Amino acid sequence: MAKPRAAIPAATVSRLTLYLRELQQMERSGTSHVRSGWLAERLGLNDSQVRRDLSCLGQVGQRGVGYRVHELTAAIQRVLGTDRSWNVILVGIGNLGRALSKYRGFDQQGFRLVAAFDSDPEKVGDQVGTLSIKDLNELEPFVVSQPVDLAILAVPASEALSVAAKLQRAGVSGILNFAPIVIPSNESLTVQPVDLALELQRLAYSVVQSKQESHDPKDLPDEDG
Amino acid sequence: MAKPRAAIPAATVSRLTLYLRELQQMERSGTSHVRSGWLAERLGLNDSQVRRDLSCLGQVGQRGVGYRVHELTAAIQRVLGTDRSWNVILVGIGNLGRALSKYRGFDQQGFRLVAAFDSDPEKVGDQVGTLSIKDLNELEPFVVSQPVDLAILAVPASEALSVAAKLQRAGVSGILNFAPIVIPSNESLTVQPVDLALELQRLAYSVVQSKQESHDPKDLPDEDG
Repeated sequence: MAKPRAAIPAATVSRLTLYLRELQQMERSGTSHVRSGWLAERLGLNDSQVRRDLSCLGQVGQRGVGYRVHELTAAIQRVLGTDRSWNVILVGIGNLGRALSKYRGFDQQGFRLVAAFDSDPEKVGDQVGTLSIKDLNELEPFVVSQPVDLAILAVPASEALSVAAKLQRAGVSGILNFAPIVIPSNESLTVQPVDLALELQRLAYSVVQSKQESHDPKDLPDEDG
Repeated sequence: MAKPRAAIPAATVSRLTLYLRELQQMERSGTSHVRSGWLAERLGLNDSQVRRDLSCLGQVGQRGVGYRVHELTAAIQRVLGTDRSWNVILVGIGNLGRALSKYRGFDQQGFRLVAAFDSDPEKVGDQVGTLSIKDLNELEPFVVSQPVDLAILAVPASEALSVAAKLQRAGVSGILNFAPIVIPSNESLTVQPVDLALELQRLAYSVVQSKQESHDPKDLPDEDG
C-alpha cells in the first residue's frame, strides 16, 4: 500500500507550505471547502500550477466540489512531515534569538522549543520566553539525552561553524541557520539558510524589474486627477 | 548599447545573491580570482549551473583564468540593483523589529535604515539602534517627504494589511513582510514574504527526505568504531 514517495521539488515544497498557511487560516475561520482557483488567486499563482502541486498529495479533492479544507491540510502536513511535532533547540540568545523564542508561528506549526543555549555566562540562567538559558557547554549532553530534532542557529558568524559541528556531533539532523555565513549541508546534516539581507536583495530586484515594466511608455496611464 | 535585459528567473536571482555573499567574503579576505567550480562546491551546486547563472551577467570571466572577484561582485550587484543604496524604513518595533534594527548585514549590502515606526505611544521617542522610534501616524508624511524605497514590516498579523495599505499610499514600492499573513503584491507594490515557520517546515521536509534516503538498507555503512 505505502508506495515509496518520490522527493517533491523544492519549489513545490515551498508552495505547499504557503497553501498550508492559507488553509490553516481558513480552518480557524470555519471555512469547510476550497477550490484550487481561490488558493491560486490568494497567492498570485495560476490555477493549473496549484492543481499540479496538489496532485503530489495523492487522491484529494472532488471534481466540481473542490477540496475539504481539513482533508487538504492534513494531506499537506503528512507530506511535509509536520503532522508530528518536532523538538527544536535555539542556540544564540541575542536580539534575534530573543525574537525567535517568542515567535508564535513555530508552535502553531508543531515546532516545540525545548531549550535555549548561549555561550555568554552572563546570560546563562536568564529566562527567554518560557525557557531558562543554558550554557553552550551543556548542548551536547542535552541533545544526547533528550529527543531533539532540529536547531535554530542565531549565533554570530564567527561562532556558527563550531556550533554547527557541535550540533552535528550530538546528532541534530537539521539546522535553520540565521548566522550570516554558509554552513554546508552533508549526509547527516541538512542546513536551511535564512539570510535576511538576501531577502531584501530579492525584494530590491523584484522592485527594479516591476518598475522597468511599468516604465514601458505604452503602459503609462493618462492622469487626469 | 543598453539592450533591455530580460527578467532573470527567481531561482537564479536567489543563487546570484548567494554567489554575491561568497564573493564579498572573498573580497574582504583579499582573494582576487575565483573559478565557478569553487563557488559550486561552496554552495553545493554543480559547476554547469553556476556557469549558466553567471552567463546572465553578460561578458565576465576568462576561459582558464576564472573570474576577477571584484568584477564579478560588481556585475552581480549591477544586475540585482544593489550597486546603489536603498533607503529602508522599519515598521513595528517588537522583539523582531529590534533584532532587525541591529542586523549588520543590511547596511553591508547597501540597505540603509532611515526610520523606525511603531503604533505604541509608549515606544515613540525610544532609541532603537541609531534611530528614534516615530509614531505610525507620521509614516505617510515621512515617506512623502523623504526618499524611501523599501519597508520592512514586523508588525502583528492583525495590523499588517492596514500598514501595508498606508505604505502603498505613501509610495513605497517594496515590502519585506515578516508578519505571519499574506499581503498580496500588486502593480505598484512588490511584497516579499519571510515566514520563519515556513523555513522550519522546509527544513523539516528536507530532513525527512534525507533520512528516508539514508534508511535505504543498501546505503547503511558498516560501523566498526
